[in-house]
Amino acid sequence: MLAGDTAAASRALSLVINEDVRSDAMIRAFFMKSGAAQKIGICGPPGAGKSTLAARLVSIYRKRGLKVGVLAVDPSSSISGGAFLGDRLRIQEHAMDSGVFIRSVATRGMVGGVSHTIFGAIHVLEAWGCDRIIVETVGTGQAEVIIARVADTVVYVTTPTMGDEIQAMKAGVMEIGDVFVVNKGDLAGKDKALSDIKAALGLGLSRDPPPWETPVLSTSALTGTGVEALSAALEAHAKYLRDSGEGRRRLKQQHREEVSLYVSRRVYQDALSQLDRYLDDLADHKTDPATVGARILKK
Amino acid sequence: MLAGDTAAASRALSLVINEDVRSDAMIRAFFMKSGAAQKIGICGPPGAGKSTLAARLVSIYRKRGLKVGVLAVDPSSSISGGAFLGDRLRIQEHAMDSGVFIRSVATRGMVGGVSHTIFGAIHVLEAWGCDRIIVETVGTGQAEVIIARVADTVVYVTTPTMGDEIQAMKAGVMEIGDVFVVNKGDLAGKDKALSDIKAALGLGLSRDPPPWETPVLSTSALTGTGVEALSAALEAHAKYLRDSGEGRRRLKQQHREEVSLYVSRRVYQDALSQLDRYLDDLADHKTDPATVGARILKK
Repeated sequence: MLAGDTAAASRALSLVINEDVRSDAMIRAFFMKSGAAQKIGICGPPGAGKSTLAARLVSIYRKRGLKVGVLAVDPSSSISGGAFLGDRLRIQEHAMDSGVFIRSVATRGMVGGVSHTIFGAIHVLEAWGCDRIIVETVGTGQAEVIIARVADTVVYVTTPTMGDEIQAMKAGVMEIGDVFVVNKGDLAGKDKALSDIKAALGLGLSRDPPPWETPVLSTSALTGTGVEALSAALEAHAKYLRDSGEGRRRLKQQHREEVSLYVSRRVYQDALSQLDRYLDDLADHKTDPATVGARILKK
Repeated sequence: MLAGDTAAASRALSLVINEDVRSDAMIRAFFMKSGAAQKIGICGPPGAGKSTLAARLVSIYRKRGLKVGVLAVDPSSSISGGAFLGDRLRIQEHAMDSGVFIRSVATRGMVGGVSHTIFGAIHVLEAWGCDRIIVETVGTGQAEVIIARVADTVVYVTTPTMGDEIQAMKAGVMEIGDVFVVNKGDLAGKDKALSDIKAALGLGLSRDPPPWETPVLSTSALTGTGVEALSAALEAHAKYLRDSGEGRRRLKQQHREEVSLYVSRRVYQDALSQLDRYLDDLADHKTDPATVGARILKK
């Protein structure tokens, strides 16, 4: 896999995503190659055109000879346990390209397991040799939180018809985007959406400290208009991260999150397995969750 | 608070939600009163009319003299850190009623902290004396997973215009609902939606073992049509849970989840605080997340 074998990467990814016992050993082996890829998160409301935009970026990177990984994260398929969202992924044109690795990651219902799994998947893709890793998410809310925690650069995508949304969730959205995109820029209301976002950013809500000036771009993922400019903005952000030290600060945050999740996931699973003996006492109110929790923690 | 004081309950809820150091002692004191309320989860896509339906149910319960708690869970406001979604809550008519306790719970960005917080909030509401606790969620995906883990009875709400969604996420949705509601039943397509849901249930996808026969109801939360029937279905499900033993099984699952989250939250926070010394070594690839995680676990 370290030599770039795609089938091997695919198997490694499955093992890591399923939290196989061998995943620790793999992550130890893969981690030395980490940090080489720019991890680009793409988030925004459903229907904003994130997948099409991701596919456009992949084309641009491939033309430059870069290896690209795409992780499509779908927290909404957490219940059914592993649904493949291939149909949502407008990126199938790249499926046969040996320089592109595409995988969708469903989360199997484990709140908190999502991010943990993505960190592992990213290590696999970095070790496989990716220069760019695009993490695309379906849905909003928790998904955006996750993206912001694993990506170096976050692209927030909206459309002219979703201006109300920008208004409504101004603060929350502004805090996670490094680059803002008004996609479907051929629709009416583009200028209003652009200026609304700029106004919100003017309130100092950006997640990047100066000298980064958060770009607000208009694209049409369908025709390709503006996607080169987006790609240039992403390069500029990578340079900003390197030069300002913000990249290292963010990397440390990612590691902090990854290790904490590693530890708490193990403990969570261990606690689950120890709990059976307490469940009747809890159901009968002979003890309480805080007391049982404290006892397990002590052990 | 145990005497039913609302202001005291409000303060207790804030302390629990903010994971105050006193929350352990409170949960110990409150837990003895747990199990008396039916915890009703209401989920479904945005725009299905969940809040209006919740308000209708509150009215019915109040007419019967029951005390009601409403928790509105908003995972999408996790980023901005505590936004109050009062404006989304069509339930303000009950805000001055001393037999109703309404609170919205944003999640402050902590993936996994959501459910933990809701368990604590439910203990407060039970100790305050609630007979029914409605947990309403904004958004889909993780939110539904959370609801299914904390509620005794889950109502899945959809509308005639959302039939495609039912088709698409059939399995995932079916696995979490105990009662299905096609709201906005005055719109065209109601019968199609009802029969689609029934067909999916016919595939044996319900989360309840027999003898429960999952009701599929049509309501209009706006006019109130069908809401009495929904309320009757919820009573029937409560009886089913008591009589079949499924209620105790589900309660044990809730306790299992609550304690595991309790333990892993503490460990997560403890790990976060211990990590600083490793972050430079990680950033410099002198070690890796699995090795650091294992070391902290050992400690």
